[in-house]
Amino acid sequence: EATRLLTERQIKKHGNHPRSHGRTRHGHGRRTYKWIHGELKGNIPLQFLAWVSYPLMFILFSSLFCHLVAPQAIGSGIPELKTILRGVVLKEYLTLKAFVAKVLGLTLALGSGMPVGKEGPFVHIASICAAVLSRFMSFFSGVYQVNILTVGCAVGVGCCFGTPLGGVLFSIEVTSTYFAVRNYWRGYFAATFSAFIFRVFSVFNKDAVTITALFRTNFRMDFPFDLQELPAFAIIGISCGFLGAFFVYLNRQVVLFMRRPNAMTRFLTRHRLIFPAVVTLVIATLTFPPGFGQFMAGELMPRECINSLFDNFTWTKISGSPLPVGLGRSAAWLHPDVSVFIILLLFFVMKFWMSAVATTMPIPSGAFMPVFILGAAFGRLVGEIMATLFPHGIVFDGILYRIIPGGYAVIGAAALTGAVTHTVSTAVICFELTGQISHILPMMVAVILANMVAQGLQPSLYDSIIQVKKLPYLPELGFGHMSQYNIFVEDIMVRKVKFISSQSTYREVKLLLDSSSLKSIPLVDSRGKRLNADFNLNSCHKLNQSRLRDFPRHESDADLAPYSLLQITAWEEKEMDKPMEIDEIRVDPSPFQLVERTSLHKTHTLFSLLGLSHAYVTSIGKLVGVVALKEVRNFTAECVSGFSLVEFLNLKDIFNSSEAVMFPPVSLLSFGCFCLILVSNKQTNRFLQSLDEDYPRLNP
Amino acid sequence: EATRLLTERQIKKHGNHPRSHGRTRHGHGRRTYKWIHGELKGNIPLQFLAWVSYPLMFILFSSLFCHLVAPQAIGSGIPELKTILRGVVLKEYLTLKAFVAKVLGLTLALGSGMPVGKEGPFVHIASICAAVLSRFMSFFSGVYQVNILTVGCAVGVGCCFGTPLGGVLFSIEVTSTYFAVRNYWRGYFAATFSAFIFRVFSVFNKDAVTITALFRTNFRMDFPFDLQELPAFAIIGISCGFLGAFFVYLNRQVVLFMRRPNAMTRFLTRHRLIFPAVVTLVIATLTFPPGFGQFMAGELMPRECINSLFDNFTWTKISGSPLPVGLGRSAAWLHPDVSVFIILLLFFVMKFWMSAVATTMPIPSGAFMPVFILGAAFGRLVGEIMATLFPHGIVFDGILYRIIPGGYAVIGAAALTGAVTHTVSTAVICFELTGQISHILPMMVAVILANMVAQGLQPSLYDSIIQVKKLPYLPELGFGHMSQYNIFVEDIMVRKVKFISSQSTYREVKLLLDSSSLKSIPLVDSRGKRLNADFNLNSCHKLNQSRLRDFPRHESDADLAPYSLLQITAWEEKEMDKPMEIDEIRVDPSPFQLVERTSLHKTHTLFSLLGLSHAYVTSIGKLVGVVALKEVRNFTAECVSGFSLVEFLNLKDIFNSSEAVMFPPVSLLSFGCFCLILVSNKQTNRFLQSLDEDYPRLNP
Repeated sequence: EATRLLTERQIKKHGNHPRSHGRTRHGHGRRTYKWIHGELKGNIPLQFLAWVSYPLMFILFSSLFCHLVAPQAIGSGIPELKTILRGVVLKEYLTLKAFVAKVLGLTLALGSGMPVGKEGPFVHIASICAAVLSRFMSFFSGVYQVNILTVGCAVGVGCCFGTPLGGVLFSIEVTSTYFAVRNYWRGYFAATFSAFIFRVFSVFNKDAVTITALFRTNFRMDFPFDLQELPAFAIIGISCGFLGAFFVYLNRQVVLFMRRPNAMTRFLTRHRLIFPAVVTLVIATLTFPPGFGQFMAGELMPRECINSLFDNFTWTKISGSPLPVGLGRSAAWLHPDVSVFIILLLFFVMKFWMSAVATTMPIPSGAFMPVFILGAAFGRLVGEIMATLFPHGIVFDGILYRIIPGGYAVIGAAALTGAVTHTVSTAVICFELTGQISHILPMMVAVILANMVAQGLQPSLYDSIIQVKKLPYLPELGFGHMSQYNIFVEDIMVRKVKFISSQSTYREVKLLLDSSSLKSIPLVDSRGKRLNADFNLNSCHKLNQSRLRDFPRHESDADLAPYSLLQITAWEEKEMDKPMEIDEIRVDPSPFQLVERTSLHKTHTLFSLLGLSHAYVTSIGKLVGVVALKEVRNFTAECVSGFSLVEFLNLKDIFNSSEAVMFPPVSLLSFGCFCLILVSNKQTNRFLQSLDEDYPRLNP
Repeated sequence: EATRLLTERQIKKHGNHPRSHGRTRHGHGRRTYKWIHGELKGNIPLQFLAWVSYPLMFILFSSLFCHLVAPQAIGSGIPELKTILRGVVLKEYLTLKAFVAKVLGLTLALGSGMPVGKEGPFVHIASICAAVLSRFMSFFSGVYQVNILTVGCAVGVGCCFGTPLGGVLFSIEVTSTYFAVRNYWRGYFAATFSAFIFRVFSVFNKDAVTITALFRTNFRMDFPFDLQELPAFAIIGISCGFLGAFFVYLNRQVVLFMRRPNAMTRFLTRHRLIFPAVVTLVIATLTFPPGFGQFMAGELMPRECINSLFDNFTWTKISGSPLPVGLGRSAAWLHPDVSVFIILLLFFVMKFWMSAVATTMPIPSGAFMPVFILGAAFGRLVGEIMATLFPHGIVFDGILYRIIPGGYAVIGAAALTGAVTHTVSTAVICFELTGQISHILPMMVAVILANMVAQGLQPSLYDSIIQVKKLPYLPELGFGHMSQYNIFVEDIMVRKVKFISSQSTYREVKLLLDSSSLKSIPLVDSRGKRLNADFNLNSCHKLNQSRLRDFPRHESDADLAPYSLLQITAWEEKEMDKPMEIDEIRVDPSPFQLVERTSLHKTHTLFSLLGLSHAYVTSIGKLVGVVALKEVRNFTAECVSGFSLVEFLNLKDIFNSSEAVMFPPVSLLSFGCFCLILVSNKQTNRFLQSLDEDYPRLNP
């Protein structure tokens, strides 16, 4: 067993290789980019052309490739995974096609230098690996494990930054509602080895001398910060909360604007490449280093941004004076004429909307990294302000400790990403990324404050995308809402249940299928007889068809004359009145049942944990109602949005008093047993289509 | 809502104060201890007396206090909490009495300097705070939240070492099977603030200049370790796995030995203070610094041990030469005549059994800290060996990097605690304790390897205690065991269900209660009539009693003459044959139901998540069986212990073929509905007792 798991990881690690190579490749890409840029020095128009055309080419190719190969590869992938882990299988998101499109599209998107991230896509890629592996392993063991997807997510984050701990925690916080602790261990295992391989590769590539953190900082450790600096950290946290909520709002507004039906969006939908092209063009133009870009450190690539924002210098002190040795790329932030504050502010404001817009482009892109950079810039800004306010540092015990703006940048980065994603584990990711844990307490405080503010104002970025994309996801129950214990399943269930029994005729089934788009239908038994089979519409469909065709098919193609149209219709009608042969068909024998007095809290818990899409409500074995994800979702949403108890109880009374009028008498459905018929939407349509196809041929 | 939560934390933080003060207090205690020891220098017998009597006094008082006030305060508390969070309420463990006993007992135990920890007791104390608070808050909101206990656990670990992250993760890993991610955030919140207050107190107390890690290390960060050192880290991990398993084994054997019924243990049970006294005496004698203690750094208190083991020196290099400045307490490890290796080895071996024995004393004591020290000593030993093997360090890129034995000690500590507790979050605790994260990858690898080995050999220390104490806990399903999907509820359920119906007579109920010790009885209805009330035995008991007493009681006390004994018995018999008046009694309307084909995996999940103690199995509303925690536990244990699939399937066949013979025909129980009667064991006994009391008076 352990060997099997180990092998899986081994293969997964190999699955990671293309990604590490990808990183190196676009590393080379950027080097080429810079080289072109350097060669063309002096020739501004040509330089501009190179600066703009290079990302344009990459983004357009990425967008086109994704559009042609697998449109599912577009975007982050975390919202879809959250939905999948919730229990609703979106199969097309876990295919090899999506994998190829995502890997190539992401490599191109990252190579373009646009403010798009890689965390979400990495999670998606690793999950596809996990799903494919799992399907592959199921040939041997026969069991399909959904759990492996959680591990896949952890691996995705873990090998994205080389942060195994943060990877596991972040993936849990982002994707799960309930978490089985036994998966925790597996997640650690997989993420550690993936991060290990990722970092060992960088040693082999001579990028690093040994296994160290990705964005290693070098702050002093004996006295990382003074207690008097805490209010500043708290301010960063609270501000980041507001900024994070605003980022989510802005991002959603851009998406909603693009989806609003008007002439422009229709035009853009028809010509899919125009939107990314325009966005890329505008962003590239604004960041052009000899142009406006010089006022917002436009020449820095995302990774250089982080490294320079986390550095150990105090920019306000060194600006003006000759630049110290070892400053490196941080020099981009120091403009001879413009203050550091203005450059940081401009960078923050410009990158803010750029990131919010760029992440809506139809390419594989995450928002984590851009937000991380924004947070770092904001933190740095506060840090530099603090360094100006206290130019000589803070006195403690007679010793002067100067303020480290880099520490503020790290805290800002953690707080803003925490606010946007509604997670606290960004703090852990920050520790692992920087390799320093000395700021742990102020960082935790800032992240928690940011979360408190952001969670009060907006949903998380991923939940926002889920809402916009209308993915079938169940929101979480707010804590402490009384109503969840006072609402029972009988209050929220749909009482008008459509069902078939073993005596149902083909006509009844056809009518039922015609009138609804249900994916499964309860099968009840009117005489206490038990049915134990997994009803499969495919076979049902065949049965129906064969029966309908039995009689007329022999001659119908050749000549319809021997039988009059009336005769055929009459035969058909007769056949349709015969009871269905359910005994030959497999039916799921253990549908999920609830009793009427199950509380909403319990129902929600069961739906969340077991990933149910619907559950039947029985009373003494009688089917009295059905609760689907929709009902639970709606009532949960009402609970969460502060639906007051008094209002609800009133509503409940009205509900109860009028139910006799509103719904057919419950006692009508007096059946001893019920089972589910699993009917996929597609199959239903195909079945109805096949019926329809037959009719016109018979009718004139 | 947020304010309420905030207030809770505020109060909880105040709840933490006694603990921080406690720490300081026993800090003073130790100082006194040392001062006495120093004053008596030269007078070895007196010194020995002081050295031995001091811990003896503390331990005896702690043991006596716990025994008198609340025996529940004895031990770690984590196993009990794990059981409580599993759903089985052990009420006596969450009382104010237990709180007082635990706080005082723990302070005394820690002050004694015995190798006992504080993590488990801290978790227990914080959980009692949480439970008391929760009960207090429920006056206002009316809702009792079990969730708050999880948060309490996190706070316990968090404020024990000032490690909020590790605290949350460790408490999740140790106590939960399924974890609601929404509690995660709350845990972080509470743990951060508790750790914050804990560390701010140490700043106010002038123990530290600012908020830093508790056991801050100062290893070089630019090149923390070389890839060539990885095998050594892996060896530490694997060895710690074996050692951890052995520790758990040894600890259990000591407990089991003490529980074996023989003359000695009976004597010890009668004189409870003898066992702790002897253990304390032996340990104190062996660690006496001028005696044997000089060969095992006996003078060091636990905290000094950790600080010195994590230091930045290489002891093998400095032993012999004049001691460098800043060595501090580490000097205790350097004996002029004996090699460092021997001292470390002696320390490890002696402390190993001492810790295993000391944690079984009847005082509030955890095992985390002693194991942590053991692991650090083992890691240090390996580190020193490595430093001897490579005296000039490891060459990389032409630069010599010397080996840091302190880094090995940190990894050893994380690996051994991880192996004993079966958690990976000990790595996080280590980062937070040391304030350095540069060793993250080798540490994660070592912890995971240690976990792999230890999990294969022994249960975790807490699970071992649960087993020994026979607490009602459900073990986890091993991963990938096929059988969990192939075993269905119908295979494991007890088919001979005892039930009562609305027609049951008092006689039937009495017989049922006489013959079983069930806590609840399903209430079925033979005619499809529905019953909706929470059956409470208290009222049932009253009903029974009043009916039985109605007739004879008027005169029975005065004189039994007017009615012959036969008459009374006849009346009683007649009354006993009347049906019970269930309609007047409340019955739980929504007992948990499963259908026959529910898989063991699903059943286990439901039991774990919902904290069920039993569930009824129905077929078309008919009650066909019952599954209790016991059955699920037994079958899960079989699954986990590597019950092979083939064997099981054979067993299943035998089971199926013989079931008609073994069990009464299922069809006998053809009832339309069932409900639960909640009957507590105590009440049953009292009821039967009251019946018995009546009889002798009537019978001659």
